[in-house]
Amino acid sequence: MEMKGFITFEGGECSGKTTVINAISEILNKKGIDFIVTREPGGIRIAEDIRNLILDVKNTDMTPECEALLYAASRMQHLTQKVIPAINDKKIVLCDRFLDSSLAYQGHARGLGMDNILKINSFALNYLPELTIFIDVTPDVALKRMSNADRGGKCDRLDQEKIDFHEKVYEGYHKVLKMYPDRIKRVDGDKPLDEVVKDCVNLVLDYIGR
Amino acid sequence: MEMKGFITFEGGECSGKTTVINAISEILNKKGIDFIVTREPGGIRIAEDIRNLILDVKNTDMTPECEALLYAASRMQHLTQKVIPAINDKKIVLCDRFLDSSLAYQGHARGLGMDNILKINSFALNYLPELTIFIDVTPDVALKRMSNADRGGKCDRLDQEKIDFHEKVYEGYHKVLKMYPDRIKRVDGDKPLDEVVKDCVNLVLDYIGR
Repeated sequence: MEMKGFITFEGGECSGKTTVINAISEILNKKGIDFIVTREPGGIRIAEDIRNLILDVKNTDMTPECEALLYAASRMQHLTQKVIPAINDKKIVLCDRFLDSSLAYQGHARGLGMDNILKINSFALNYLPELTIFIDVTPDVALKRMSNADRGGKCDRLDQEKIDFHEKVYEGYHKVLKMYPDRIKRVDGDKPLDEVVKDCVNLVLDYIGR
Repeated sequence: MEMKGFITFEGGECSGKTTVINAISEILNKKGIDFIVTREPGGIRIAEDIRNLILDVKNTDMTPECEALLYAASRMQHLTQKVIPAINDKKIVLCDRFLDSSLAYQGHARGLGMDNILKINSFALNYLPELTIFIDVTPDVALKRMSNADRGGKCDRLDQEKIDFHEKVYEGYHKVLKMYPDRIKRVDGDKPLDEVVKDCVNLVLDYIGR
């Protein structure tokens, strides 16, 4: 079930999601369109507490299954307290990452299986986005960007394990794209960032009817 | 998929689970059978952190969906770090509450639906108990026990909302019993406690082959 006005943004590390969302926000502002920008856990206290548990360095012994369920729990709280109320108020919701991240990261890259991720996120399947923009950056390009000192340390240099994981996330996203060809629109993220932004802006403008 | 030696105990509040588990422990000790007693979250740090989040009084705005997913997350950590290793060591595991509690409480009483609870617990379905003892106390008897001052305040007096909830949990357990007629053995919990204990002990002795 898809929610009118719910737009999510997906992609690996350093894919430019933040720049894209900022550019779209400016345009929606100029057009006087009511919208919110959010990301999981999106400033929802309970969802943030869950997220802190996942990221706590002392929890390295957390099982992948437990982690995936915690993401699903955090997602439901964020949906209920932030996304759904905004949609009910007829606002556009721009959300940085959602279910597809769990499918690509936990489902494929961590090897839990897409089907299992769909099952544990069955509540969230009632609140899918109507439009998902997937910024598709090939691993080679992403790694070059990551090692670019100009980024000011926002993205750490990656060790081999992280590079392998990054490539699995890339594979995962392409599987997800095939699962939802109507909902997810792919943007070529290897292009210069200003062109990526332009492509994404156009997809959103098409979606809201210009 | 069921795990050999994994035994769980189910029932509403004040059903006598603790007394029963203590009695069974004594008998297994006398027989020199290797076993552990546990309960969710079972002293597993991550699982306890999750449980604390669920029970934190400042989290009254937690959604039922989020709560159910947190229980499922806590369950996987407890299974992985405590139950499965004990089973692999050929120990008997006596566990106070497991999946069936989520089905009766969150699935039926909180109205999330049994099917949804099964979906979000799909990882745990690979590690089901071989024997579940359901101590069946009718709501009337449970309420009388709860209001009995002799219990030394272990069970609080219940308001009407809690009584209604308690009855829904009772209904829920009977639905679960119908779903798993082979795995779950019902014991009449309205009988005097020493008889309940005797029935439960006999079920366990039958299971382990006397």
